[in-house]
Amino acid sequence: MARGRLISIEGGEGAGKSSVMTALLDALREAGIDVVRTREPGGTPLGEALRHLLLDADHPDLCAESELLMMFASRAQLVREVVQPALDAGRWVVADRFTDASFAYQGGGRGQPSGRIADLERWAAGIRPDLTLLLDVPVAVGMERARGRGPSDRIETESDSFFERVRTAYRERAAADPQRFRVIDASQPLEAVIADVRRVIADFVAAQSAGKA
Amino acid sequence: MARGRLISIEGGEGAGKSSVMTALLDALREAGIDVVRTREPGGTPLGEALRHLLLDADHPDLCAESELLMMFASRAQLVREVVQPALDAGRWVVADRFTDASFAYQGGGRGQPSGRIADLERWAAGIRPDLTLLLDVPVAVGMERARGRGPSDRIETESDSFFERVRTAYRERAAADPQRFRVIDASQPLEAVIADVRRVIADFVAAQSAGKA
Repeated sequence: MARGRLISIEGGEGAGKSSVMTALLDALREAGIDVVRTREPGGTPLGEALRHLLLDADHPDLCAESELLMMFASRAQLVREVVQPALDAGRWVVADRFTDASFAYQGGGRGQPSGRIADLERWAAGIRPDLTLLLDVPVAVGMERARGRGPSDRIETESDSFFERVRTAYRERAAADPQRFRVIDASQPLEAVIADVRRVIADFVAAQSAGKA
Repeated sequence: MARGRLISIEGGEGAGKSSVMTALLDALREAGIDVVRTREPGGTPLGEALRHLLLDADHPDLCAESELLMMFASRAQLVREVVQPALDAGRWVVADRFTDASFAYQGGGRGQPSGRIADLERWAAGIRPDLTLLLDVPVAVGMERARGRGPSDRIETESDSFFERVRTAYRERAAADPQRFRVIDASQPLEAVIADVRRVIADFVAAQSAGKA
């Protein structure tokens, strides 16, 4: 049996990850692919408990080092409990955020050194997505969309300059690895974003089938 | 003002850390030293929440990598929120476990590579104790004592061979750094253990005073 594929969806606040996730799952299922979705932080009982601690406004003084370590604690458990077993069983996994989010948020946003994050990627995550969709949107546009969604969590209440650093880090990672990343202009109307995503997925699925033949 | 000193108490299950902690705090206060006590995992609101997740028997499948990361997440927050501010204010800190516990439990016990733990020590903890008391007791003796204490947590239910590896790792660390470690024979009656601890502390306090003079 062929190993499954890991696809991650990345992007800042208000980039439209949830709508894209739905469209992406639909597109894969229409292609006859058995797919599992995950989210981060979270995706396992332990990860959801860590998510609560990480996003809870009750811990405003959480230091950047602890934030980074807890993100990878959640990810390490998710990989071993969910992602790797699914891939080994030939299922595909669509991840709402993965390690690139740590380079963007804890690296770009909080200033944690990228070498430190790369070390954790190597031994705590241990795998890298086969395809990453970066939903790129100017910070002002994303924040305007996100504001309509109810109470903010601990990270959503950061400053615009924090989110500018997050966006820059995401775009730099995409530029450095064009083989894996597809940057989607998420400032477009949702229908246009979803059309772009469907095109990218169709190409990727076709390439995987070609690779197997 | 002189920087405070960090003293850690380490040892396996049933080594008598709680009784020694009390005696140690008494001895320091009698010497006129302003002292703060901490415990790990825990010691901050975030750390206590992580402690609950780490020791809770509800997460039996917690992977070794997540356990290590969560231990250091708790420690990173503790250092920045409690330990470093206390030391900077000239207070002494007595820690019920510190980084050596990760080398012993997550390293020796769970097989996490020591280079990985040393990296985390460097950037997540960032400090090392000035003095470490290792309460050393044969596993069978310690387990016999611990059994009397009520329900076991997730780590206390490990096998004897796990605790043998923990003890070996502790002893190896002590042998490699005799300047910092004092190994106390904790299989002795409690009064003898406490007498040993008091002697060690009296010597340490005297040496610090001499160093300042």
